[in-house]
Amino acid sequence: MLKRLLLTSSLLLLAFPAMAFAEEPAAATLDMGLNTIWIMLSFILVLLMQGGFILLESGSTRMKNAGHVAGKTIFTLGLGTLVYWAFGYGIAYGGDSPLSSLFGWGDFFYNPAIAAGEGDAFPPAVYFLFQLAFVLISLSIAWGGFAERAKLSSYLIFTLFFAVIIYPVIAHWIWGGGWLAEDGAQDYAGSTVVHLTGAIAAFAATVLLKPRIGKFNKDGSANEIPGHNQVYSALSVLLLWVGWFGFNAGSALTIGDGFLGYVAFTTMLGAGAGAVSALLISWAVQGKADITTMLNGTLAGLVAITASCAFVEPWAAVVIGLAAGVLVFYSVKFFEKLKVDDPIYALSVHGMAGIWGTLANGIFATQELAEKVGVGQGGLIDTGSWRQLWVQFESVVVSGAYALVLSFAILYVIKKTVGFRVTEEQEIIGLDMSEHGSYGYPEQMKKSRVFKAGNGIIP
Amino acid sequence: MLKRLLLTSSLLLLAFPAMAFAEEPAAATLDMGLNTIWIMLSFILVLLMQGGFILLESGSTRMKNAGHVAGKTIFTLGLGTLVYWAFGYGIAYGGDSPLSSLFGWGDFFYNPAIAAGEGDAFPPAVYFLFQLAFVLISLSIAWGGFAERAKLSSYLIFTLFFAVIIYPVIAHWIWGGGWLAEDGAQDYAGSTVVHLTGAIAAFAATVLLKPRIGKFNKDGSANEIPGHNQVYSALSVLLLWVGWFGFNAGSALTIGDGFLGYVAFTTMLGAGAGAVSALLISWAVQGKADITTMLNGTLAGLVAITASCAFVEPWAAVVIGLAAGVLVFYSVKFFEKLKVDDPIYALSVHGMAGIWGTLANGIFATQELAEKVGVGQGGLIDTGSWRQLWVQFESVVVSGAYALVLSFAILYVIKKTVGFRVTEEQEIIGLDMSEHGSYGYPEQMKKSRVFKAGNGIIP
Amino acid sequence: MLKRLLLTSSLLLLAFPAMAFAEEPAAATLDMGLNTIWIMLSFILVLLMQGGFILLESGSTRMKNAGHVAGKTIFTLGLGTLVYWAFGYGIAYGGDSPLSSLFGWGDFFYNPAIAAGEGDAFPPAVYFLFQLAFVLISLSIAWGGFAERAKLSSYLIFTLFFAVIIYPVIAHWIWGGGWLAEDGAQDYAGSTVVHLTGAIAAFAATVLLKPRIGKFNKDGSANEIPGHNQVYSALSVLLLWVGWFGFNAGSALTIGDGFLGYVAFTTMLGAGAGAVSALLISWAVQGKADITTMLNGTLAGLVAITASCAFVEPWAAVVIGLAAGVLVFYSVKFFEKLKVDDPIYALSVHGMAGIWGTLANGIFATQELAEKVGVGQGGLIDTGSWRQLWVQFESVVVSGAYALVLSFAILYVIKKTVGFRVTEEQEIIGLDMSEHGSYGYPEQMKKSRVFKAGNGIIP
Repeated sequence: MLKRLLLTSSLLLLAFPAMAFAEEPAAATLDMGLNTIWIMLSFILVLLMQGGFILLESGSTRMKNAGHVAGKTIFTLGLGTLVYWAFGYGIAYGGDSPLSSLFGWGDFFYNPAIAAGEGDAFPPAVYFLFQLAFVLISLSIAWGGFAERAKLSSYLIFTLFFAVIIYPVIAHWIWGGGWLAEDGAQDYAGSTVVHLTGAIAAFAATVLLKPRIGKFNKDGSANEIPGHNQVYSALSVLLLWVGWFGFNAGSALTIGDGFLGYVAFTTMLGAGAGAVSALLISWAVQGKADITTMLNGTLAGLVAITASCAFVEPWAAVVIGLAAGVLVFYSVKFFEKLKVDDPIYALSVHGMAGIWGTLANGIFATQELAEKVGVGQGGLIDTGSWRQLWVQFESVVVSGAYALVLSFAILYVIKKTVGFRVTEEQEIIGLDMSEHGSYGYPEQMKKSRVFKAGNGIIP
Repeated sequence: MLKRLLLTSSLLLLAFPAMAFAEEPAAATLDMGLNTIWIMLSFILVLLMQGGFILLESGSTRMKNAGHVAGKTIFTLGLGTLVYWAFGYGIAYGGDSPLSSLFGWGDFFYNPAIAAGEGDAFPPAVYFLFQLAFVLISLSIAWGGFAERAKLSSYLIFTLFFAVIIYPVIAHWIWGGGWLAEDGAQDYAGSTVVHLTGAIAAFAATVLLKPRIGKFNKDGSANEIPGHNQVYSALSVLLLWVGWFGFNAGSALTIGDGFLGYVAFTTMLGAGAGAVSALLISWAVQGKADITTMLNGTLAGLVAITASCAFVEPWAAVVIGLAAGVLVFYSVKFFEKLKVDDPIYALSVHGMAGIWGTLANGIFATQELAEKVGVGQGGLIDTGSWRQLWVQFESVVVSGAYALVLSFAILYVIKKTVGFRVTEEQEIIGLDMSEHGSYGYPEQMKKSRVFKAGNGIIP
Repeated sequence: MLKRLLLTSSLLLLAFPAMAFAEEPAAATLDMGLNTIWIMLSFILVLLMQGGFILLESGSTRMKNAGHVAGKTIFTLGLGTLVYWAFGYGIAYGGDSPLSSLFGWGDFFYNPAIAAGEGDAFPPAVYFLFQLAFVLISLSIAWGGFAERAKLSSYLIFTLFFAVIIYPVIAHWIWGGGWLAEDGAQDYAGSTVVHLTGAIAAFAATVLLKPRIGKFNKDGSANEIPGHNQVYSALSVLLLWVGWFGFNAGSALTIGDGFLGYVAFTTMLGAGAGAVSALLISWAVQGKADITTMLNGTLAGLVAITASCAFVEPWAAVVIGLAAGVLVFYSVKFFEKLKVDDPIYALSVHGMAGIWGTLANGIFATQELAEKVGVGQGGLIDTGSWRQLWVQFESVVVSGAYALVLSFAILYVIKKTVGFRVTEEQEIIGLDMSEHGSYGYPEQMKKSRVFKAGNGIIP
């Protein structure tokens, strides 16, 4: 078959030059081809970021939960895909809503054209995949608040709602031509849409679940519950960093004049700056250069630059990243003071840095770049106007409030009906055994003092 | 040198517009450029899937074999590359065979043109790399049947034969213009060619090797021998999932009108459906949502959609994936009942799902898509005709039989000459120590009860 | 916003055909688009190689240092990015140096145009990212010599110098139009610039640090200090192998006539050959097929083919790879004899193989390919002339000497001022605890005999 395709395509190519000069669409088709490859690559990179989340979440938790934590990511990828295909995409980008500034309606059980049509910038199926990858990232961020104590069934139920009525509505508001888009909200690749939404869901979950056993002492002080594998964590950050170029530069959606390169450039600076400032602040304040803080800082730099990567100059990208790295260090301490247990640091890394990144546009966006992208206007420094900062603030507050109310309501109903948290005994044994009946690390857990039952299946 | 290239290419570009309108090949060249990037990306993604196999196979086996299992994948990638370059490619796609419906002959020690020629759809070296990546995947699937008890020398010898006379012949039949291609067998990206062939070799190996020590009890009942690391397993599935877009969408080989996007779209649905149905069936039947089953289901969804991704509508992709997830759950039980030891689940994931995926074309393929691809015809539902289903059945039976006879014969000779299985003592100690003289996890194995020799080399 | 971009770009596309035939730059722009995607993909692949280094370095060292080893790679990526952006790029490629055959001067705090200009082969920001990825690889190679005993502060300080005055100067000489470029030195993707430079810095470090505690006995014999995880090591080699196609084929910088496919083809052959010969030589000489040697051989094959991938025929690529695999086996023994402790095998894999690969051009380069690339001339076999071999030798010696003198001087000053090596007690405890205050594997280290302090924070 491949050979047949090869022959066919060779024949087509022989015919092509003639076509190219006989009819007009040739250049358009080649441009469509460029966009198609770029968005496919970006989709693939964003999907690869899920490998980062598998490692980040399992590396940041304990051995007794590792199989559960890693495995449920694959499951929710699958479930999220089906649900977003069936319903979510239609809410975000479907065309026929009577309330089109609030949500879309249409294209349920999405059945795209099999190829790009005349004048399309890319095939519709490719656009769907890229959008799907984004909702799946937001979903994986949300799991940060569920870690080490939520029942598997709650992951299943929450996915259904998150991928249909939480994320798609906010995506519609900001990216789907909804009311925040009309206001000129700048969120190039989703500091708000993806990161803040996911982090808010994580926040609702961790508040409703209450802290893990042993996290806080009776006197209110916090214990560290270190993750079991920092190699996983470091590799996770690298995978997320790599994938982020699909996230940010992919959001250009077209090759055009190569602007995506600039977007990637500011992204790299933001990430690097976050790594450096977070390590240095922890070294300066605590006397030890903390690895976890530095990894969080790198991700915070990436989250923060996500909204602003297309709107700011290089020096500003560095400043945004440096600030994100410092912010994440103090944010982690802040949530501990509030006795909010945030096992994967989702609230700090994706939430606080997501807010900072969105607001940063209002400060650092240049008029030139805002016009280039065609969304909103320059920020405080370049224009002296507070207008864009206000729009950014509005978009954070409104999106955050929507995500918070819905997440809280849905999880509250789950808690009161099927139950949200495993029993104390199950939590101590670990979710690998309690939810799935086998350890993620059977040979190592057998020797553990925690659980000596030993099913004797390993020769 | 880079700068020099840059200057040269800039000058070329300045000259290019003039050329573009003076001569015809311009559009063809740009189209060749698009195809080149797409196939290179696809090759790279399929090669990345080997990272998935390293983790899948080591995650599914025990700590005492981990270094061996992971390392031999790299070795067989290297050996397979050399052998396929020297001989295999010529059997699959070489041009001058007197029996060209059975096998190719030519292009041994392949020496491609250094660039794309006039009218080429892509450079020949790029096509070679993409084909090479496929045979290496099939090879890594075969190793599933060897796991935890085959001698290293058997991997070496079997690679020589598999990459020259097993895989290339089947590839020739279906993709190289051979007799099954003439019959209209539909196998877009290799449910049969790659997955079934590999799985059949795994089957021959595991039957000849006999089950691992401790797998089956005297009363015929089976013990579970759990793999040592489910984080590896989950990450492996993610890497395979990501790489599969090179596998399936890459098989389009051209950008053309963007049809590859549709292929990627059905692939995503098939994978998601497999994850969901496998988890739910295990939860429903066993009362526990089994992680390993869910991971197998995801892969089974991907394997099944591999043949049909270009031929079916979205709803059918979901059905094919859902069925694959259920199938893999029962298939694993079925092979255990037969007392066939399948450590990495290759027989179920790649074999049974590969058969199902190939047959599914005969049921779900639409006439429109069959014509679009230009292979075979619509299936039972769309056309009411049993013709395509028969062709699919024929292609599974014939390819499977060929792979089975040759694999069995080659491995039987290995068994009777240099030996196939390690000694009982070696198997208990583990292949890391017996085949390579050092543990993959030296610090952790030192403490193990299994093997107390302790070489005392770690301070 | 995405939708808005989509609409805009669709409109642009509708306008495009008219433009395409009215004005000349159309084909040039599409060609720029091809190059942009290819270089972005290559940059991303080279950045992904850092995941390989994280796993390679942590897999090759002990559990007590794993978090430190993995984490510091992310930190130095961040710091290296900022420093190279601010200063290094301007030294390597900045335009206005009065001594332009020695170093560049300009473009500090690099602020590229936001898109490709008229006639550009690609956007400048994309070129920067690709170059940045290379210096970061060279830096990660250098860390091989620091492993398991250098203070974190020395990583920080050395990064500042390496990314500004060591690597950029050599890159300028060979790739930036400097004096070795004028001499016709052939180093397609950096066997010398990237690999040898990094390895030389590693050599200076390991000599100044002295061997790890326990590496050498009083009688001069060496102990093996095995790395703790061969699955990491094998996966690292796969990731590096995959990323290397960005490294080598990406160095083409243009799609043009598809020559990059040929470059990737020889790269694949070199890697495969290195894996095979290294495993076989260790099997033949030691009676055991050593996994570590085989992994080193694969990397050595890749390092060696890096200079020559664009200059040699397929058979020569196989010979270069085979020789590299054998070379690395004996080189490791050679450095042990010299009592040089090389924990990650950087001196053998990147240094010796880097030298071999650079020299190999002088032997195997063909006149046809040298002319195709436009650098230097054919080697000894094709032309009978020793000229190119002499140029290659010169370039190795001069670059190596420069890297050695500067690395040694900088590290010597570090040693005599802030200190280079941790204390004996810290080294025994491990750098995770001594430099960062927490273990990379807290649950597993708690049980360890090495360090029983136990902070009791894990419930």
